[in-house]
Amino acid sequence: MAFARIVRGNLKRAGGAIGTFRDGKEETFRGVLADSCSFSSFESVPTRSDFFGRLPSSKLNYASNWSRGIRTTPHDQFPVAERALAECDSEYESDRYLGLEPTKPGEKPRVVVLGTGWAACRFMKGLDMNMYDIVCISPRNHTVFTPLLPSTCVGTLEFRLVAEPVSRIQPALSATPNSYFYLASCTRMDTAKSEVYCETFGNGGLLQEPYRFKVAYDKLVIAAGAEPLTFGIKGVKEHAYFLREVNHAQEIRKKLLLNLMLSENPGISEEERKRLLHCVVIGGGPTGVEFNGELSDFIMKDVRERFPHVKDYIQVTLIEANEILSSFDVGLRQYATNHLTRSGVHLKRGMVKEVHAKKIVLNDGKDVPFGLLVWSTGVGPLEFIKSLDLPKSPGGRIGVDEWFRLPSVEDVFALGDCASFLEQIGRPVAEREGKFLDELFRRIGKQNGGKAFCSKDIPLGDPFMYRHLGSMASVGCYKALVDLRQSKDAKGISHVGFVSWLVWCSAYLTRVVSWRNRFYVAVKWATTLVFGRDNSRIG
Amino acid sequence: MAFARIVRGNLKRAGGAIGTFRDGKEETFRGVLADSCSFSSFESVPTRSDFFGRLPSSKLNYASNWSRGIRTTPHDQFPVAERALAECDSEYESDRYLGLEPTKPGEKPRVVVLGTGWAACRFMKGLDMNMYDIVCISPRNHTVFTPLLPSTCVGTLEFRLVAEPVSRIQPALSATPNSYFYLASCTRMDTAKSEVYCETFGNGGLLQEPYRFKVAYDKLVIAAGAEPLTFGIKGVKEHAYFLREVNHAQEIRKKLLLNLMLSENPGISEEERKRLLHCVVIGGGPTGVEFNGELSDFIMKDVRERFPHVKDYIQVTLIEANEILSSFDVGLRQYATNHLTRSGVHLKRGMVKEVHAKKIVLNDGKDVPFGLLVWSTGVGPLEFIKSLDLPKSPGGRIGVDEWFRLPSVEDVFALGDCASFLEQIGRPVAEREGKFLDELFRRIGKQNGGKAFCSKDIPLGDPFMYRHLGSMASVGCYKALVDLRQSKDAKGISHVGFVSWLVWCSAYLTRVVSWRNRFYVAVKWATTLVFGRDNSRIG
Repeated sequence: MAFARIVRGNLKRAGGAIGTFRDGKEETFRGVLADSCSFSSFESVPTRSDFFGRLPSSKLNYASNWSRGIRTTPHDQFPVAERALAECDSEYESDRYLGLEPTKPGEKPRVVVLGTGWAACRFMKGLDMNMYDIVCISPRNHTVFTPLLPSTCVGTLEFRLVAEPVSRIQPALSATPNSYFYLASCTRMDTAKSEVYCETFGNGGLLQEPYRFKVAYDKLVIAAGAEPLTFGIKGVKEHAYFLREVNHAQEIRKKLLLNLMLSENPGISEEERKRLLHCVVIGGGPTGVEFNGELSDFIMKDVRERFPHVKDYIQVTLIEANEILSSFDVGLRQYATNHLTRSGVHLKRGMVKEVHAKKIVLNDGKDVPFGLLVWSTGVGPLEFIKSLDLPKSPGGRIGVDEWFRLPSVEDVFALGDCASFLEQIGRPVAEREGKFLDELFRRIGKQNGGKAFCSKDIPLGDPFMYRHLGSMASVGCYKALVDLRQSKDAKGISHVGFVSWLVWCSAYLTRVVSWRNRFYVAVKWATTLVFGRDNSRIG
Repeated sequence: MAFARIVRGNLKRAGGAIGTFRDGKEETFRGVLADSCSFSSFESVPTRSDFFGRLPSSKLNYASNWSRGIRTTPHDQFPVAERALAECDSEYESDRYLGLEPTKPGEKPRVVVLGTGWAACRFMKGLDMNMYDIVCISPRNHTVFTPLLPSTCVGTLEFRLVAEPVSRIQPALSATPNSYFYLASCTRMDTAKSEVYCETFGNGGLLQEPYRFKVAYDKLVIAAGAEPLTFGIKGVKEHAYFLREVNHAQEIRKKLLLNLMLSENPGISEEERKRLLHCVVIGGGPTGVEFNGELSDFIMKDVRERFPHVKDYIQVTLIEANEILSSFDVGLRQYATNHLTRSGVHLKRGMVKEVHAKKIVLNDGKDVPFGLLVWSTGVGPLEFIKSLDLPKSPGGRIGVDEWFRLPSVEDVFALGDCASFLEQIGRPVAEREGKFLDELFRRIGKQNGGKAFCSKDIPLGDPFMYRHLGSMASVGCYKALVDLRQSKDAKGISHVGFVSWLVWCSAYLTRVVSWRNRFYVAVKWATTLVFGRDNSRIG
């Protein structure tokens, strides 16, 4: 059995299922660019050329942006054709265009999943591995439990506890010979040939010499996520921190502790000390509010104890153009507002005009100096998604039907934040979408529709039904809001306070995927109560 | 009481104890450079100008070196005069030269400690805070428990568990009004005026606009540590990873997981896959051997389970010019050699000639391709220490007498890896040195010798006695070596195996400073046995 596996694996690697795609390198790139039905020409996407037009300095800029916590999901990091060609002169050139060839008759159909967010992971977790093989392609080998990210910024939780490796979510990815996880970005796709083209991904950015490869699919699930909205405001990407990935939380934590320590130095003016210790959060959605809550907890307890020389200088400001927590019940909103104000958070109505290194300029012309700026104003489609020549919903996301299919393209599905229903039936709910698609794929597999171009006429069963299950947000000080109304205008149960916080904790504990992490999170929450938070600034 | 504190603190900040040093900025720098008795001129230190001569690109180079884990203890990052002057034109210029003035009669004497290694932290922990105030200056706000660093590289322990914040080691640093921790590098000192000059330190490197300040001391304790020896071998700093700081361990872990994942991609040749998965460790001292042990544990258990597609390609090689663990008993050495070989580590005798991005060239001309290179060949004095115009021991460290005093300079002491006895009485033993100096400072304080220039004729009691207490090293697989001989040639107890591993664990557990971290380390060791190691690649 084990021997058979090795033979099979080696065969595959030795060329059985691997071939080079096209002959020469120039033909490959130009050919794909010209033929590919899925890509508009590179020049027609202005936002992308904004990012990559400035070669050769673009790599440098990209690296520094990455370290600031910008460019959230790196799916949009794909090269302009010139760069791709220019980099092909490495010593490993001849090996670059290997890949996984289409599955042979008798082999299980191959499902290629782009992304490792909640939708992708829930789908992979539930997929019937007796029916399919999976190839997961993502620049991140773990999924991030974003609701707990704000806690990690101030040291309530460890970074590692909010990240779950995909190989733990779907063990088959590392245990079965034809399933793989590839740390790479999908750069292009050809839906006519059922192929995606990828580039390996390195330390927080593109590798200097990426390996390129292709993967043929029987079914493709695009679940690449979204990126933070900046509304084109100047300076946001350069000077603000987002809060979507673990490395963002790490950077925010480093910056916060650095500013606290810098402000203690004697070689500093009062004004500069105030600036360094002014934390500004833009956006009053759940993430912004939860970050504010954690931050004010941290200040009230830890900063007062450990940085007493500067404790009276620190200030948190939440700037929101409209109302905070606008999706919540009005009573809950009022509670959150009062609670945050009592915790010392300064709530401010305003719109940001532009962002500089040390200050924000508001629309009314006022300057707001800051030491730390966290940007949390919701998400929009990735550049990569925008650039795909596929039917889109009005917001620029991939338009799908109630079975998460792309109506015009066979065998391609889209889930989560990168997709949107063509007919409005509700907000994306990544986890339930993943679960629904598992069922659908089981049904398709049972009717022998797993292979490429085989599932057109298979009955798919009931479509996905959207149901709003409620919203939750913690506001710090062991308090939380729970809104269980069925829709925004309906009446229902809403709750505030410590009991809600327990509900919030346990709801999250049961959703943090592995038992291992559940255990650690519980231990860590308990010990933070006993020992307080950790404040070493490592790295 | 609290009110008195606030008033006192504000008074101090408002100017009572703070003044500007000299008048103008040019005078300040030139003046100090010309007058300072402690500094040879900048141009006479060739290694330093090698690093900072290439402005303006030096900052960039520096940043990339830092992220590779190079420039271990950043005390040696100080500017050439040109750069310092060039950067003085910021908007905060006028505030740059504030500082802590000499203590007034009636105030407690101020002990300035440079560094946060074991010597510095042990000293600060035990110092009588009723007698002295402390100002600790270091580019790192925590101490690192280096013997446990190799475990963090493979995920056996969390990074945070091996780092202990100084404010936890000596709570007075954040709790008393005249004691401070400054996140900064000491760049110069003037022993005639009892002053040190500092520059704030930023995200893994110098800040773009550092704040500069000075601190007057009554007693100065230099415990700035050491940096890895590279023997001037070309390419080491650019391409190898050291293992002295938490961020080094983080970088090694990221690189290891990245290489494992990259090697799974189909767009890669056999040869390149082998290279990516070849981990080379240079140096067979305890750190090198412990890292090898952890690495082979990781490969035997975790890689085999989670990266089965590439498990047969991974190889660990330990290259040592002489014998591994040369300070240990010959029986223990033999045991370690056998154990490592059985664990699959390839032991190789050899000297490195030069290091390239993807291969080492040995002295015999042979190439050794590698994916990860860890350099662990001992430590030598920092550039900062070398540049000080103070009496040195033959190895370039600060020469001290048996009371850790600098014979020629009053009120200055040196401890740990940056110091060396002028008369050879043994190896540095940072922790016991710190403890000894606490006693000495208590005796000095009791005899009213705490203030600057007041302790010359005070009887100091017995000198420091060196006693070798034994050596320990773990070799992986829950096995360790314990060598309790009194000296290298003496007979004594030596132990190998699982019991030794338990001794090793508990010896470390009792030395990891806080109860909090002891608890976490014990929990983590226990849960690693149950759940295995974590392999998400964050950041």
